[in-house]
Amino acid sequence: MSATCPLCHPTAAENQAILWEDALCRVIRVDDALYPGFCRLIWKDHVAELTDLSPDQRSHCLKVLCGVETALRQLMHPDKINLASLGNMVPHLHWHIIPRRRSDPHFPNSIWGPQTQTETQPPRAPEDAALAAAIRQALAA
Amino acid sequence: MSATCPLCHPTAAENQAILWEDALCRVIRVDDALYPGFCRLIWKDHVAELTDLSPDQRSHCLKVLCGVETALRQLMHPDKINLASLGNMVPHLHWHIIPRRRSDPHFPNSIWGPQTQTETQPPRAPEDAALAAAIRQALAA
Repeated sequence: MSATCPLCHPTAAENQAILWEDALCRVIRVDDALYPGFCRLIWKDHVAELTDLSPDQRSHCLKVLCGVETALRQLMHPDKINLASLGNMVPHLHWHIIPRRRSDPHFPNSIWGPQTQTETQPPRAPEDAALAAAIRQALAA
Repeated sequence: MSATCPLCHPTAAENQAILWEDALCRVIRVDDALYPGFCRLIWKDHVAELTDLSPDQRSHCLKVLCGVETALRQLMHPDKINLASLGNMVPHLHWHIIPRRRSDPHFPNSIWGPQTQTETQPPRAPEDAALAAAIRQALAA
């Protein structure tokens, strides 16, 4: 744990946004009005890179990542899923899992790139309970 | 295979940039003067998403991704590794593996975000042969 890392010290709001967790990682819903369904997988230990994990931990991380992707695809039918582990600002291993639509504000750019269009009516995000249940179900499969 | 997908029909230059491959995927060096060491893992089958792969294929993809990350960390000692599977423009599964430096042109943004600074002297990219050997070694470990 790092004394100054925000992912080592989640806020109450971030803890309320937890959709799924186990001893190794947690999955939270990211509040982003432009990107409904945006989720973040946060590894609990303060490590910077995927290859800082053991092989078993890497496999677990992949399994959870795929569980979230599966749940988002089932519930939202996005045009594309974007996965990214950047961590330039917060070097604590976390994955962005972002359902994308051809009509979304940055498509086909990354959500960190220039905006390309405006979207008058983004889809509704799934309810937290439905998303949490779909993640649990995908991980149990 | 898709008739119109550029990753299904690599150019001669892209084939020359192959650092490592097997029956399922290839790893190429990306020619980017700003980002020496930038590599791309390209799945050979024309699938869009990580969860379009079988569990064994997903594990293989993860193993190769980690092999490339390990090789880049050993040879370049970057400040951070960025991993991303976007595919909004080319919906054929591929991973960007990007060594980042605090002094690089977009840090701490993603390389798809706004430029933050100029870098007068980016590091030299590893020689292809050295990078290929490091990937082979990481995958054999």
